[in-house]
Amino acid sequence: MYGAGDVRIDTVPDPEIQRPTDALVRVVTSCICGSDLHPYHSMPAGEVSPMGHEFIGVVEETGPEVSTVRRGDLVIAPFAWSDGTCEFCREGLQTSCLHGGFWARDGVGGGQAEAVRVPLADGTLVKAPVGEDSELLPHLLTLSDVYGTGHHAARQARVGPGDTVVVIGDGAVGLLAVLAAKRLGAERIVLMGRHRARTDLGREFGATDVVAERGQEGIAKVRELTGGHGAPKVLEAVGHMPAYTQAVGVVRPGGIVSRVGAPQYEEAPVGFGSLFGPNVTLTGGPAPVRAYIEELMPAVLDGSVLPGKVFDRTIGLDEVPDGYRAMDDREALKVLIRP
Amino acid sequence: MYGAGDVRIDTVPDPEIQRPTDALVRVVTSCICGSDLHPYHSMPAGEVSPMGHEFIGVVEETGPEVSTVRRGDLVIAPFAWSDGTCEFCREGLQTSCLHGGFWARDGVGGGQAEAVRVPLADGTLVKAPVGEDSELLPHLLTLSDVYGTGHHAARQARVGPGDTVVVIGDGAVGLLAVLAAKRLGAERIVLMGRHRARTDLGREFGATDVVAERGQEGIAKVRELTGGHGAPKVLEAVGHMPAYTQAVGVVRPGGIVSRVGAPQYEEAPVGFGSLFGPNVTLTGGPAPVRAYIEELMPAVLDGSVLPGKVFDRTIGLDEVPDGYRAMDDREALKVLIRP
Repeated sequence: MYGAGDVRIDTVPDPEIQRPTDALVRVVTSCICGSDLHPYHSMPAGEVSPMGHEFIGVVEETGPEVSTVRRGDLVIAPFAWSDGTCEFCREGLQTSCLHGGFWARDGVGGGQAEAVRVPLADGTLVKAPVGEDSELLPHLLTLSDVYGTGHHAARQARVGPGDTVVVIGDGAVGLLAVLAAKRLGAERIVLMGRHRARTDLGREFGATDVVAERGQEGIAKVRELTGGHGAPKVLEAVGHMPAYTQAVGVVRPGGIVSRVGAPQYEEAPVGFGSLFGPNVTLTGGPAPVRAYIEELMPAVLDGSVLPGKVFDRTIGLDEVPDGYRAMDDREALKVLIRP
Repeated sequence: MYGAGDVRIDTVPDPEIQRPTDALVRVVTSCICGSDLHPYHSMPAGEVSPMGHEFIGVVEETGPEVSTVRRGDLVIAPFAWSDGTCEFCREGLQTSCLHGGFWARDGVGGGQAEAVRVPLADGTLVKAPVGEDSELLPHLLTLSDVYGTGHHAARQARVGPGDTVVVIGDGAVGLLAVLAAKRLGAERIVLMGRHRARTDLGREFGATDVVAERGQEGIAKVRELTGGHGAPKVLEAVGHMPAYTQAVGVVRPGGIVSRVGAPQYEEAPVGFGSLFGPNVTLTGGPAPVRAYIEELMPAVLDGSVLPGKVFDRTIGLDEVPDGYRAMDDREALKVLIRP
């Protein structure tokens, strides 16, 4: 990306093993994330960055210290790379790994490419027991980010059996937060979104109600659906301030707002009139999806959940600029890339 | 209170039973709260309000529908009155009672007085099995607010056995948050405060370390004491923005900031650079102390905890204006009133 709205296909030198803990992965499938649209809107012209943080690929080469994956393995890469051994990784908070980092920065490439150097391969990569022609790949690819992120939202909100949950946002993460909440036992799931094709998929994933209205009208509608006082669990999967306001508006006193949409603001209301007075808890953050892959993968492998339904367009690497445009125009929900 | 800095003793008509669920309580002991200093600093001149939300008294008269307390009972009044039967009361969130409210507003008097009309007496009052001359009264009085509030901070932060906890603020609530954290099993309790007499009491209550430094220096000291990354549980018992900043500075990634100091701000940092990036949870609010009285009272009655040690001055009703001044000048930690 060369600045807002400017995505180009560049030819760059092939990545090489730099450290003994690196692996080289040939990308089999990757995708464009809703969060990639943030720099697509706001990156200053003149800055240049590789892009993409979700990919599945085949290990081509490993450094001498890599022991858990080897040449030929099909692997899932979480959106953060991590050592798997530091105190935070051991607690399942790999996004705070003391030695880890994120794709497409600090000399590490992005997933919207033909190949990627994966640092700390043992801690980062998870082997998937399928071939590179498997029809399950789009579903498995959601474990790189969006399904794990939806799961994180639900988990941080402590969603459990019988719960009433509101999900704000009908992007891929919001829809998969619906799926995750359903999987954790939620009984009533209200999805706030206004794109019919997306909310229909939300209903398929488990939403019991859809509220298309926004702002005060949307808040009133949700409160009406949830006994007048709002919902005890609210999953915010957008990241813009109106979504935060909406979350605070629909949460029940004593309830939890769990955010996984990367906030496009730093300050927000948290005082007596918003969170404090009604004892509302605010939680969430970048999902340590690495911690969830083993838990979420079996149901993906046996086909009992189909999170890859969020992909509604498949393109080659050359078409990536148009893929950004299509997602930005909301022509496509989520774009799969087959390099 | 007649505006900032202007506290007067007024003679007002005796309260009377207005509703069948009311009780009249003669105040035996009450006190001045750290939160009373907020209007003492900022109340516009011309406004008038009764004051006080913590009291123990003797029931003098009850309305015909009151059944759980009767004339002659010594009772503890939580800082919020509540019906005890609505959905929030049943969940233990009496501060969000659908029919409840707070002292010293909406036609209900304050506890810094000779007598108070208590609405919804069955839901609100808790009988204490001691006489009005008991030496336990100062300790029991902390169940009206400050001990229950410190407990709420620790409970919302899910403090448990072996935990490392930072408490910000050496006022009565901060010190009792130390006591509460200790009671819940915390092993390491770092108290941030700089008034030696108070932090000494904090050590008596269970603090293992005291950090007198503030700002970046205080943050660095606490991080050094807690393995470099901060503490998993931070209890914020002040309510001013610097305390919030300090809490965010000393909390460990994945940790919890639990606020019980009434926030004197509405907006605060919650984005990538503060809460979101490190997956920090923000929780807390006005403590539903009514929910905690039965749990906390036994150890007060048997003398194994002495939360009333936060009172370091006792005055009569006539001396209340000077009591505010003494607390504001930090001459007194917490002032007990014997009307």
